[in-house]
Amino acid sequence: MEELLKTIIDNNRIWTKHGKVASYIPELAKANPDALGIHIFDLECNEFYAGDYETAFTIQSVSKVITLICALIDKGKEAVFSKVGTEPSADPFNSIIKLETRNSHKPLNPFINAGAIACTSLVSGDNGIEKFERVIEMVKKMANNPNIQVNFNVYQSEKLTGNTNRAIAYYLKGANIIERDVEDVLDAYFKLCSIEVTVKDVATIAAVIANGGITPWSNERIVPKEVNQIVQAIMMTCGLYDASGEFAVKIGVPSKSGVGGCIMSVVPKKMGIAVVGPALDESGNSIGGKKVLEELSEKLNLSIF
Amino acid sequence: MEELLKTIIDNNRIWTKHGKVASYIPELAKANPDALGIHIFDLECNEFYAGDYETAFTIQSVSKVITLICALIDKGKEAVFSKVGTEPSADPFNSIIKLETRNSHKPLNPFINAGAIACTSLVSGDNGIEKFERVIEMVKKMANNPNIQVNFNVYQSEKLTGNTNRAIAYYLKGANIIERDVEDVLDAYFKLCSIEVTVKDVATIAAVIANGGITPWSNERIVPKEVNQIVQAIMMTCGLYDASGEFAVKIGVPSKSGVGGCIMSVVPKKMGIAVVGPALDESGNSIGGKKVLEELSEKLNLSIF
Amino acid sequence: MEELLKTIIDNNRIWTKHGKVASYIPELAKANPDALGIHIFDLECNEFYAGDYETAFTIQSVSKVITLICALIDKGKEAVFSKVGTEPSADPFNSIIKLETRNSHKPLNPFINAGAIACTSLVSGDNGIEKFERVIEMVKKMANNPNIQVNFNVYQSEKLTGNTNRAIAYYLKGANIIERDVEDVLDAYFKLCSIEVTVKDVATIAAVIANGGITPWSNERIVPKEVNQIVQAIMMTCGLYDASGEFAVKIGVPSKSGVGGCIMSVVPKKMGIAVVGPALDESGNSIGGKKVLEELSEKLNLSIF
Amino acid sequence: MEELLKTIIDNNRIWTKHGKVASYIPELAKANPDALGIHIFDLECNEFYAGDYETAFTIQSVSKVITLICALIDKGKEAVFSKVGTEPSADPFNSIIKLETRNSHKPLNPFINAGAIACTSLVSGDNGIEKFERVIEMVKKMANNPNIQVNFNVYQSEKLTGNTNRAIAYYLKGANIIERDVEDVLDAYFKLCSIEVTVKDVATIAAVIANGGITPWSNERIVPKEVNQIVQAIMMTCGLYDASGEFAVKIGVPSKSGVGGCIMSVVPKKMGIAVVGPALDESGNSIGGKKVLEELSEKLNLSIF
Repeated sequence: MEELLKTIIDNNRIWTKHGKVASYIPELAKANPDALGIHIFDLECNEFYAGDYETAFTIQSVSKVITLICALIDKGKEAVFSKVGTEPSADPFNSIIKLETRNSHKPLNPFINAGAIACTSLVSGDNGIEKFERVIEMVKKMANNPNIQVNFNVYQSEKLTGNTNRAIAYYLKGANIIERDVEDVLDAYFKLCSIEVTVKDVATIAAVIANGGITPWSNERIVPKEVNQIVQAIMMTCGLYDASGEFAVKIGVPSKSGVGGCIMSVVPKKMGIAVVGPALDESGNSIGGKKVLEELSEKLNLSIF
Repeated sequence: MEELLKTIIDNNRIWTKHGKVASYIPELAKANPDALGIHIFDLECNEFYAGDYETAFTIQSVSKVITLICALIDKGKEAVFSKVGTEPSADPFNSIIKLETRNSHKPLNPFINAGAIACTSLVSGDNGIEKFERVIEMVKKMANNPNIQVNFNVYQSEKLTGNTNRAIAYYLKGANIIERDVEDVLDAYFKLCSIEVTVKDVATIAAVIANGGITPWSNERIVPKEVNQIVQAIMMTCGLYDASGEFAVKIGVPSKSGVGGCIMSVVPKKMGIAVVGPALDESGNSIGGKKVLEELSEKLNLSIF
Repeated sequence: MEELLKTIIDNNRIWTKHGKVASYIPELAKANPDALGIHIFDLECNEFYAGDYETAFTIQSVSKVITLICALIDKGKEAVFSKVGTEPSADPFNSIIKLETRNSHKPLNPFINAGAIACTSLVSGDNGIEKFERVIEMVKKMANNPNIQVNFNVYQSEKLTGNTNRAIAYYLKGANIIERDVEDVLDAYFKLCSIEVTVKDVATIAAVIANGGITPWSNERIVPKEVNQIVQAIMMTCGLYDASGEFAVKIGVPSKSGVGGCIMSVVPKKMGIAVVGPALDESGNSIGGKKVLEELSEKLNLSIF
Repeated sequence: MEELLKTIIDNNRIWTKHGKVASYIPELAKANPDALGIHIFDLECNEFYAGDYETAFTIQSVSKVITLICALIDKGKEAVFSKVGTEPSADPFNSIIKLETRNSHKPLNPFINAGAIACTSLVSGDNGIEKFERVIEMVKKMANNPNIQVNFNVYQSEKLTGNTNRAIAYYLKGANIIERDVEDVLDAYFKLCSIEVTVKDVATIAAVIANGGITPWSNERIVPKEVNQIVQAIMMTCGLYDASGEFAVKIGVPSKSGVGGCIMSVVPKKMGIAVVGPALDESGNSIGGKKVLEELSEKLNLSIF
């Protein structure tokens, strides 16, 4: 298996030349554009990895998955889906307010910024700090890694340049989607995007979801069955911005990407996979990561269709 | 099983009161709004049915699945996806041209009208009649029913009132997405929408897809493996208009609806399901049919997530 | 003349029953929906009035005209139009960010909220208080009334409920259209909307513009000729939200409306007119005021076309 | 005066290098991109011209003004404005269906293609030929030139490549905005766009409008006063596609442009002006023509504001 992963990484590293590292957050622009790494965590707790698997990166939008899980556990699906929709958007990842909302101003889904900010405000906690703590504790538990923490420089950079997210949050407040202090909610949101991880962490999180919400290493249920199912469905239809449909066709497993260059993929009842490659395509997805997953899915016949 | 189906139909028939039969095509308005029926065809060729399973109805947008299959077989995925995208649309089913296209004027996906008209023009055949024959032959083969034919009155009605589809087709021609005589392509498209079927026919078609493209009754491959996989992925992300995301969350299997009131669902490696209920919700999906599938999916644990 | 004005007010008061007082700012909802008044100030300094001409109301979007004048005087047309466009918008008055901007994220014109917030930030002054003082001083000068002041309750109400404007302002900051502290600029903007006036004040302002930028009472130039011309052109094409075109057809003079119920009309080289009627139509324009101006324009042949 | 015109043409000819001749209709691509000419017809019947004033060109969208005049005369303003709006659009000239319509699917205004096609269908006549004859007779009368005729090659080229207009027309038919045979209406529309004229013809037409609808040469009313006023108002707000607002600011007189390179300007109570310059800017307006009118308006103080 590790031989296979090594070959696939080598085959696709050339693609990193065709993408660009995210630059709208200055701190992200410092990432190594040539990096490409993969980690697999299967349900028998075997681990396989290749390439730049040791690279640390910020989790960015992959955190939206765990925020959604926490919001669903804390408030229930009725409450969450009264504030956020479940429909994919055909708009680019940087589209703004109007395009991210529809009737009744509900964000289209939990994986666009507007939806994730709304979910952050739904997570249990009296203030932004408590909400952040709630989600990062879940990240640590799912990743089986108590040492995960925020990259402070990225957090500062996000906060300093996050005016479009501020615009979204105030719009949501004006539409009664979020109710509390906007800066407090945003502070939690920016911290969650800035959590620093490795592909091993993310593959472990994915393995919990692939295992139905139960940790493969200790057989403990940490995500309720129904929540786990909902999250996978939304990953399938909305996980890769406006390339989610193409990803379903080409790779065919529930996934979520982040502008830090990570893609997390869940192969139900088989394994969790994480790739990282900071060079992004026009949709904001890791260009090398997508190619790696495409070849891997084909060779291992991973598509659920 | 038939007991279960009967119970589920009875439980949900009340929902038909909350929907409306499609009326933009006058002939469709004649359907019985109270009807609700289901048919299951499993991969051991067992059949189960309940409710108004004998009702005949026109296939409408469910035909887009078979048209896509034929286009992919006849022209290959590169050619098809150079003319039609694979991304879900958040727009309502009756949205028009601009909202159904993006960069390079490509229709967003094969299951909106613009995309299906483009796929119709890609199917093999020197003219509209040959293209229609190509697709209806595939419908008969997949449904294992050589007697399937067009409902002439619906076809006439579609053709007479199809000016929005004409607008779409001329727009596609202006954008070089389709190249031939617009009326000729539309004539094939209108006929394909007007094919008359029962839930048994549609469930049989779904069973072929659920079986990987191979007929469960004669073990014959009629859809290539890769095509079968692509079609299921697009059904999952785009099959129920702007309620596709919600459907993935609540039912969780690749499906396609039509304004005739049918929903076809594919449970991979298990069974094909078809429901019919002409009363539609605001998204244009069978309101009773969705509820029946929701209860069935929960009770039989059908979701692929 | 006063006889004519009285008749026109009487003829059209019935229309106030068909509109609704603005309610999104709670304090505005307290206005008298039946009020209807008019004041004319001609270039020989004759004044005519009828109806509820004594009603005090907040100037709301009519202040955008004076803000634009100040921005053009203080920064010059090149600087202003590098940040704000001059094109009418077909979107409703409450449309939000995306619909109010185009390429390079420039607000479409100075009379939508996004454009007026950008103009407020362009006005001279080191902070929001100085910018506010700059514009209200111009309002007092043009209205020939040193006693004009802010309605404190409306200002508080605007500030408390202004989250959509906050969203717009942060979006503009993210797009580098405005550069300073968002809350500081918004504070000036909310105060400017809350300036309390009567139709006499507004008709006097309009008379200055009608007189080419020169006060009819003291023959003093207070608006440069070119600025005066630009402002009238934009009032003509963008002054009544998405009913600007209809207004040009039916009344035919440069005008600007506000959700407080005022419409200010400039009849070049003839007179300034102000009407007030807090009951608004769907576009956000005074329903009675529009009808009064329509009859007046027809009877006095005021259209410039 | 002719000296002035010559100087202005010379000053601005350089701008033609920065534009591009319309190419979506192949026959239009043959125009000379360097041409730049002007003709003025004042209300004392003096004529002044300079530059390439002898160039023949097709009238294109300038015909929309005369079509609107005929529709208003033949059906009355209520009937016309029940089918077509009067609001400017911020969308580019080649925007399509959805963006050209709003509630109830009414085209936004009579000067976008959708609105002009609707107006063509409203003109008196039992069929496309009679409607065409109705409008071209008005063109000849207003231009005081009985020899005006259609450029057959351009007409053929428009008809052959007019699929986007076909899309618009079928969409309007589907929305019950037009009722008759689509190809028949389009045939009249394509012919009207293909009428061949010179700047002398267009300046003469403009002079009739500038004179309140009365021919300056024979003192004959050919456009009713109210129709004349409506048409000027719509030219002011919608005449130059999505640059109408900028044109109002910079030139300040009711105008209409066409992709053949002509701009017709009406200076009320003073003169009619026509410029031609086939090199267009990004909005589809003559790039040299706009600059010529800008300088002329400044030097002669033509703005109505």
